[in-house]
Amino acid sequence: MRGLRKLLIPAIAWFAVVPPLAEVDLDAVRAWREAHGFEVLKSFAELLAIPNTPAHPEALRATAEWARKELARRGAKAELLELPGAPPLVWARIDAPGTRRTLGFYVHYDGQPVDPASWTHPPFQPVLYTRAMESGGARREFPGPGEPIDPEWRIYARSSGDDKAPIAAMLAALDAMREQSAAPTANLVFLFEGEEETGSPNLGRFFETYRDRLDVDLWLICDGPAHQSRRPQLVFGVRGYSGIDLTVYGASRFLHSGHYGNWAPNPAWMLAELLATMRDDDGNVTIEGFYDSVEPLDAETRAAVAAVPGVETELKRELGLQRTEGGGASLIERIMLPSLNIRGMASATVGPTVRNIVPRTAEAAIDVRLVRGTNAEDLHDRIEAHIEKQGYTIVREDPDMQTRLAHPKLIKVVRRPGYPAVRTRIGDPVVAPIIAAAERAAGEPVVLMPTLGGSLPLYLFTEALGDPIVVVPIANHDDNQHAPDENLRLANLWYGIDLFAALFTMP
Amino acid sequence: MRGLRKLLIPAIAWFAVVPPLAEVDLDAVRAWREAHGFEVLKSFAELLAIPNTPAHPEALRATAEWARKELARRGAKAELLELPGAPPLVWARIDAPGTRRTLGFYVHYDGQPVDPASWTHPPFQPVLYTRAMESGGARREFPGPGEPIDPEWRIYARSSGDDKAPIAAMLAALDAMREQSAAPTANLVFLFEGEEETGSPNLGRFFETYRDRLDVDLWLICDGPAHQSRRPQLVFGVRGYSGIDLTVYGASRFLHSGHYGNWAPNPAWMLAELLATMRDDDGNVTIEGFYDSVEPLDAETRAAVAAVPGVETELKRELGLQRTEGGGASLIERIMLPSLNIRGMASATVGPTVRNIVPRTAEAAIDVRLVRGTNAEDLHDRIEAHIEKQGYTIVREDPDMQTRLAHPKLIKVVRRPGYPAVRTRIGDPVVAPIIAAAERAAGEPVVLMPTLGGSLPLYLFTEALGDPIVVVPIANHDDNQHAPDENLRLANLWYGIDLFAALFTMP
Repeated sequence: MRGLRKLLIPAIAWFAVVPPLAEVDLDAVRAWREAHGFEVLKSFAELLAIPNTPAHPEALRATAEWARKELARRGAKAELLELPGAPPLVWARIDAPGTRRTLGFYVHYDGQPVDPASWTHPPFQPVLYTRAMESGGARREFPGPGEPIDPEWRIYARSSGDDKAPIAAMLAALDAMREQSAAPTANLVFLFEGEEETGSPNLGRFFETYRDRLDVDLWLICDGPAHQSRRPQLVFGVRGYSGIDLTVYGASRFLHSGHYGNWAPNPAWMLAELLATMRDDDGNVTIEGFYDSVEPLDAETRAAVAAVPGVETELKRELGLQRTEGGGASLIERIMLPSLNIRGMASATVGPTVRNIVPRTAEAAIDVRLVRGTNAEDLHDRIEAHIEKQGYTIVREDPDMQTRLAHPKLIKVVRRPGYPAVRTRIGDPVVAPIIAAAERAAGEPVVLMPTLGGSLPLYLFTEALGDPIVVVPIANHDDNQHAPDENLRLANLWYGIDLFAALFTMP
Repeated sequence: MRGLRKLLIPAIAWFAVVPPLAEVDLDAVRAWREAHGFEVLKSFAELLAIPNTPAHPEALRATAEWARKELARRGAKAELLELPGAPPLVWARIDAPGTRRTLGFYVHYDGQPVDPASWTHPPFQPVLYTRAMESGGARREFPGPGEPIDPEWRIYARSSGDDKAPIAAMLAALDAMREQSAAPTANLVFLFEGEEETGSPNLGRFFETYRDRLDVDLWLICDGPAHQSRRPQLVFGVRGYSGIDLTVYGASRFLHSGHYGNWAPNPAWMLAELLATMRDDDGNVTIEGFYDSVEPLDAETRAAVAAVPGVETELKRELGLQRTEGGGASLIERIMLPSLNIRGMASATVGPTVRNIVPRTAEAAIDVRLVRGTNAEDLHDRIEAHIEKQGYTIVREDPDMQTRLAHPKLIKVVRRPGYPAVRTRIGDPVVAPIIAAAERAAGEPVVLMPTLGGSLPLYLFTEALGDPIVVVPIANHDDNQHAPDENLRLANLWYGIDLFAALFTMP
């Protein structure tokens, strides 16, 4: 119904014929949202129902096309930018008369892979709950017109938080502004990427190819979660990312554990022994020099770190944790350091298909988070030096028999590509109006976070395009992003609508 | 064709009307096999094509029914013995006139679970190769009448070695004896079990219920592989078995590794650190008292251990191993000790579905092999005491939030049921004719192995039935039993036919 109605309205550039209002009336935006919230949710559910992982390349493209059409319907000049072998970029532009200021809005429309068996509902069939499932929320129908909407409701689907939420919020903000005839105060450039979750392998090439469309003063990076205190936050940097995969080898074939166990080397046990040498009891990395190149924090950053609200007690209760790693350090203190995390480990099988064998291999997939001063190559070198010190010979491919017979301990190390960390100075003058807009939308001071723990390829913006960045997250921190049962709390979607309306019209 | 022809011949008890021959003419058996080898393979392939895992309960029963029918066709009194909730036992008896001696032949017709994705061919579609796949064997058709059969050929299918091979060999031996009109010299009792691979949970109940049909003087246990030197062996015991499954807990939900990694405890790393405390560099178990109750070896056993042919150099070359665990101890020396083996390990996922998360749990499935003097409960107690010494609180079910919040390190320990080790004295007089028959079949001295590394529920025979046991294995040692691409070398099947013909007619 709604889609049909919108198709009947010509997509005129309404904002070109009304005068820009410095600062939209946020009360009017909220009134619009109360009247039209059910439509916002219906449209968001339509977007969430399109599978957006690399396993569904056609649907991934359909996700981009959906966003392009919706932007075009709201009067933007909107295109899919193409490069061979890459999902398209959604690019759109809305020109504001009488200003040379241009703001860029980056979102990614792809999502993390899904393992449907681990989800309560199919990941691409959005469902509404009255609260988070783990807090006793109950499933309910989507609301109809006039039905009140509880901001504590949650919508469950892959990418509901990471990172389709800002798309829904921006579209709704434009609709609310149109209702008020409030035009943007800056030229707006929208850029939605389709392979952020696989490390943005083509974003740099896109930037080279389409640089003339990407001339902005500041990039607003719309991704990541709000602060765990539920207070909105602005984030001035992200950690860099890389990974390293380890495979330890036993015998060249599976062996009966009774006939050969404890004589043939067990690669699962070897891997456990190796991993155990890499950290101390508190989870601090003991690989030589791992923290050496971390840039010391300046006074301003230290002050911001100290001002970050403490959420540890509540988080630990929520997560069922009696203790944390780092010997009692705060979460933000840990995030200011590079990390080494086992994200997956496997050797033969456990559970119903377990067999009485000595495994052939044991694997650990490790992700490394980088901070300002550290780089992936250097940390990879240090990790490999540590592994060699434990008596291992490193190979890059599965070893042949000759290689197996020549070395007592063999390990395959695969270095995963990644990117460096980025951090914008909180005192940069370009940042001040962003803070003001966010605080208008939030109705309270927002958290100023020196860096996000997660990673985004922001070095491309700062290095290839030369523009500063500020991250403006809207999703709830407990949205299960990257995991089964990902969800978005509606209060966060509502904040996103207010935030984008305020940013689009900031003085 | 063959099945039809046999149906036309009445299943008369031919052996009741011909005089028993002390010792069948093995040359005649071999001549029969050369003429009828293609039929033996065709029948064996028919048996291998019936899925025999707990995942296929109907097919598992069909496997038993196939064996019962084939024994009945050869004149045996043959039945399926039933107990509620258990796959049936195949029981059959052939009476030899004029003797009170009775030999029992135990086989298991069930197989290990299969993961078809890891197999070169579907596990229940038997295929023939000219040699082992890993030695460059090529697939070939099954032979027709008169076509020479290379004893190095291998037949690939689940249970080809473990443990359908003896069934095929026994049936062929009876056929070859019939051709010579050679009747058995002892009463023969056949007993084929359907749940050995799941730990024989009902064999004891079967023994209680059907004890009157199981009155034998000696049980020949037809299972396990030949010696790694390819020399046939007789085995006088088996190790006992049990298992212990460990699950370490992190946060109650998956967490984004960037936002929470190295602050939230990582259960994969905790499990690695825990496992690393359980062994030294040589793979010797360092859990306090783990080896304390091992019964010291007597002089006779020590002599047998010393006489076992050394296969380590060849095995290491075959398996691509530069070193072995145990600091250079021989394989049989390691097998005389209890073992602790990781048979599977898992935390989140690796490979294409890997995600940037902190896992919620990490699991290790461990199997424990017991030797004379050790028992499972005692070793489980020692393992748990060791785990508690590392700061863990042990739970028996997934912990609730209150439990999580009360303890810094939580682990679920599940003790798997098992059974004790068994060993018959090599000098027992009942053993001598068995050794003689095996050496006739082998044409050379056979290896006398004090114990097999693997486990079978032989304590039921020795404790519930009170009879001695001797294990008479026929499968090749490199048959990939319990693993993908399980196979049987035809030379081993031929030895099996000779062996059973010799055992059925021993003086």
